[in-house]
Amino acid sequence: MFKETNIRSFAKGFSWRIIATITTIIIVYLFFGRLDLAIAAGAIEWISKIFLFWIHERVWIKIRWGKKRITPFNLWMTGLPLSGKTSIADKVFEKLNKKNLPIQRIDSKDVRLLIPDTGYSRNDRINHIKRIGYLVKTLHSNYISTICSFVSPYRKARKAVREMVKNNVFVYVKANIETCKLRDYKGVYKKAINGEIKNFTGINDVFEEPQNADIIIDTDLTNIDQASEKIVNYLKKYHLK
Amino acid sequence: MFKETNIRSFAKGFSWRIIATITTIIIVYLFFGRLDLAIAAGAIEWISKIFLFWIHERVWIKIRWGKKRITPFNLWMTGLPLSGKTSIADKVFEKLNKKNLPIQRIDSKDVRLLIPDTGYSRNDRINHIKRIGYLVKTLHSNYISTICSFVSPYRKARKAVREMVKNNVFVYVKANIETCKLRDYKGVYKKAINGEIKNFTGINDVFEEPQNADIIIDTDLTNIDQASEKIVNYLKKYHLK
Repeated sequence: MFKETNIRSFAKGFSWRIIATITTIIIVYLFFGRLDLAIAAGAIEWISKIFLFWIHERVWIKIRWGKKRITPFNLWMTGLPLSGKTSIADKVFEKLNKKNLPIQRIDSKDVRLLIPDTGYSRNDRINHIKRIGYLVKTLHSNYISTICSFVSPYRKARKAVREMVKNNVFVYVKANIETCKLRDYKGVYKKAINGEIKNFTGINDVFEEPQNADIIIDTDLTNIDQASEKIVNYLKKYHLK
Repeated sequence: MFKETNIRSFAKGFSWRIIATITTIIIVYLFFGRLDLAIAAGAIEWISKIFLFWIHERVWIKIRWGKKRITPFNLWMTGLPLSGKTSIADKVFEKLNKKNLPIQRIDSKDVRLLIPDTGYSRNDRINHIKRIGYLVKTLHSNYISTICSFVSPYRKARKAVREMVKNNVFVYVKANIETCKLRDYKGVYKKAINGEIKNFTGINDVFEEPQNADIIIDTDLTNIDQASEKIVNYLKKYHLK
């Protein structure tokens, strides 16, 4: 939240006075045809009103009426590991950040570092997603939108998020598993195939494809810019009015 | 976050016009001694400036300069079960809410319902508090202050919060264990004494008293109103400037 400083109110009054006093001088001049009197009236107006404007401004800062709350949304990216969720989500976040929108980016890798002791079993993963749902819900109650990127392979977990949180936009970041393997700069697919990582989605754990995603991004056909553009346009249409 | 509506900008312009045009009429009258001309000048000013003011207002809404971010704080209540943490925290929250401060209340019981599968072993509890620390940190990054009430019996967990989060105010809600037992409307102390609840702080698990709490509330000597007053005054002095 922002607090309007006194210096801001004063500067605003100053910029307004320039516009308003010039207008007054013109009006008085047109009426009486005397520039000296017009300027004198303008000078008195300047002195008297600059202080009045400041008081008026400070009073309005206290008034809440006519301010509209922004309804927060939850953008949720689901898809195979290395399908491109994080890159697309980061790009969308970057674009929305320019609009001064209160928004929080939540990525599986950052959260895993900070939320300790979460395993990769089916149950662990579902509970993990529920915790994220709780985090999202808490942020929403404070009018902060969210952009989440999680493999979130189970329908049950995604459904839980849908039930906990309002204004969801589910994006299925679809990628061919062979493409994901090619992008395997972290070497995680290789490890999973060698059996070094268990419960790895797409290799030795299931990815339950979403049946009712709001947006589907096929990363074999769409690049990051096009994908983020498509998502931002969707948000503009339905959530950023 | 709030968005300023057009109707608000217009209403603000209207209230300003009343003040400003009356001033103009007085100035013109004092100068020329003719009320008819003064009123006519006022009328023209009204028409010309009401629209100018609206534009001026809309332009300033886009300008971020001179708006100060509120620095968030974390008020953390620690103490034995039924020491009075929740009641005091709720009261403080109620008082601060009246000030339109962006603030989130986080209570152990609500969070336990929503964050699944958290046990009461030492390790579970420490991890639970760390998750709360993460939640607090995320809220703070969005300029939302927090009021947390958790038994949080271990120094290690409280230290973790202090390290994760800035601007902490730790409140030790101190109560004699015998007093807590008398307040046992939930019957939890009784169950713990009978061995039905394990790891119950104060009975069969340790409460490590805080050594450097910012505020100590002795609930045997202080009622809820006095305690919340003391805390709000502390916050006003150090965090709500």
